[in-house]
Amino acid sequence: MSVWVTGGNGFIGRHLIAHLAREGERVYGIGHGAIDETDRRKLGLSDWINGEISAPNLDGLVERGGAPGAIFHLAGGSSVARSIEQPYEDFSRTVGATASLLEWLRYSARECRLVVASSAAVYGAHHACAISEQASTQPMSPYGHHKLIMEHLCRSYADSFGIRVTIVRLFSVYGPSLRKQLLWDLCVRLGQGQRELMLGGTGNESRDWIDVRDVVRLLARLQHGDSTPLKVLNGGSGIPTSVAEIAQIVTNAWGGNIAVRFSGIVRAGDPFSLVADAGQLAVLPFNWRIPVHDGIAQYVSWFKGQSH
Amino acid sequence: MSVWVTGGNGFIGRHLIAHLAREGERVYGIGHGAIDETDRRKLGLSDWINGEISAPNLDGLVERGGAPGAIFHLAGGSSVARSIEQPYEDFSRTVGATASLLEWLRYSARECRLVVASSAAVYGAHHACAISEQASTQPMSPYGHHKLIMEHLCRSYADSFGIRVTIVRLFSVYGPSLRKQLLWDLCVRLGQGQRELMLGGTGNESRDWIDVRDVVRLLARLQHGDSTPLKVLNGGSGIPTSVAEIAQIVTNAWGGNIAVRFSGIVRAGDPFSLVADAGQLAVLPFNWRIPVHDGIAQYVSWFKGQSH
Repeated sequence: MSVWVTGGNGFIGRHLIAHLAREGERVYGIGHGAIDETDRRKLGLSDWINGEISAPNLDGLVERGGAPGAIFHLAGGSSVARSIEQPYEDFSRTVGATASLLEWLRYSARECRLVVASSAAVYGAHHACAISEQASTQPMSPYGHHKLIMEHLCRSYADSFGIRVTIVRLFSVYGPSLRKQLLWDLCVRLGQGQRELMLGGTGNESRDWIDVRDVVRLLARLQHGDSTPLKVLNGGSGIPTSVAEIAQIVTNAWGGNIAVRFSGIVRAGDPFSLVADAGQLAVLPFNWRIPVHDGIAQYVSWFKGQSH
Repeated sequence: MSVWVTGGNGFIGRHLIAHLAREGERVYGIGHGAIDETDRRKLGLSDWINGEISAPNLDGLVERGGAPGAIFHLAGGSSVARSIEQPYEDFSRTVGATASLLEWLRYSARECRLVVASSAAVYGAHHACAISEQASTQPMSPYGHHKLIMEHLCRSYADSFGIRVTIVRLFSVYGPSLRKQLLWDLCVRLGQGQRELMLGGTGNESRDWIDVRDVVRLLARLQHGDSTPLKVLNGGSGIPTSVAEIAQIVTNAWGGNIAVRFSGIVRAGDPFSLVADAGQLAVLPFNWRIPVHDGIAQYVSWFKGQSH
């Protein structure tokens, strides 16, 4: 049977498609953006529909490659800042798309396993230590609210119609080809020749950094879930790394004499700590392979090797 | 300023429009179903758009009657059973419509107070005694899930954009012109001449019955909320009445020699008890005026006075 990736042209989606294809899966995808023949061959993607997640498009994928054995659902809004500027767009991309997908599954592929990428943003900013899946959820942005709403919708279809869903709340995913957020910004400034970097916050804010190459191994692993209709898992390593440490790793990997300072100005709604309790993953079992020092050094190498 | 009622052609909507008009408000409405000139005049409705809650339709209402001071948002799915048959339809009616409305408010009427009809179905079936607004939510149907998702969406727009929302979780609303559910079914069977009524369940299941004429007084009261961006309130009296008692009141009001029996067969997902902790309403203050004995006797009179 084939496997499908929604939002397959995004940062995680492209890594996931390539990983699944290398593992011998027949991979189909749907989402926004054109993927040309050359790119498709490079990724190992059997076919691609550039469009909305709608019943006609999903039926179209079945016509091309048969019913899916599993669907990796990565489609959705991908920026907290953008979700504040355009909340309805984020709602449609995250919630609307999921509603269409679940309804299609109910009619057309009830046995298919759904693996859904949610976000640690559902937890909000009030957790001081490692966050378990049972912790209270209090999102701080439309992005986080819509991810949580997406989870509720999955729960509803699991409860009422037996749709089998595994939800992974991903923490701070980084890795080659990520062209936004802290690492990208640091590299861009270093690339411009800046040698004194002023960053927001205190530097002590900590995150659970996970390399996308580990993340796609985790996602692929989750298609072989047990028979539980709904499972919610943290996608995090449990290891906190502060922004100051991250900046240190980047500047060390970059080389030369670079000073990093922090403004002390904290962005409203930005959690001080966002780190997973990784207990459930450990018993899966799943092992993270790429330590943050290696992964980030490799990110810097990737950045330097690109033509911008 | 005018006030608007979405879903204004529904059971509660029509009562609310008539009540607001009697109180001297200029009332506009939007929702599905035609309301002709005669009916509009009878209800006291200034104007009505028969259609989706969409930006063009909402702009159209502003053109006819100016910006709204408050919007009573009653549009949405209205049947648990129907939501199980057609979950996507229920999702669109409840969640899709609310997303459109909130986004329109953000652009076009940010100061407007929104009063939203949610449901006690968000609580689920696991509460043995009176349920406070802080109780855990665990809906048992797509209908309940979608109402809870609607609340989350309101919370998101309140948090991020300051939209002022009051959410009322309505318990068991009944009253003249309700043409479904227990009271209607009982009256229909009595009207057909049945004198031995077999009902599902044990008869001990209890609900918090509230007359729609009290409910619309409550909704109207809530348009004058304080400045809290988001408020969640139980719309219930706090008084439990069992199904056996309800059947007794109906049969007494109907007259004659009627026997009621219970099958003992409980419908899956049907809560044994669904009764509000009415503490927050009491301090509002708000007083329920119609005792269940009077309200239900009046329902029976209404039923008998109708030509079916």
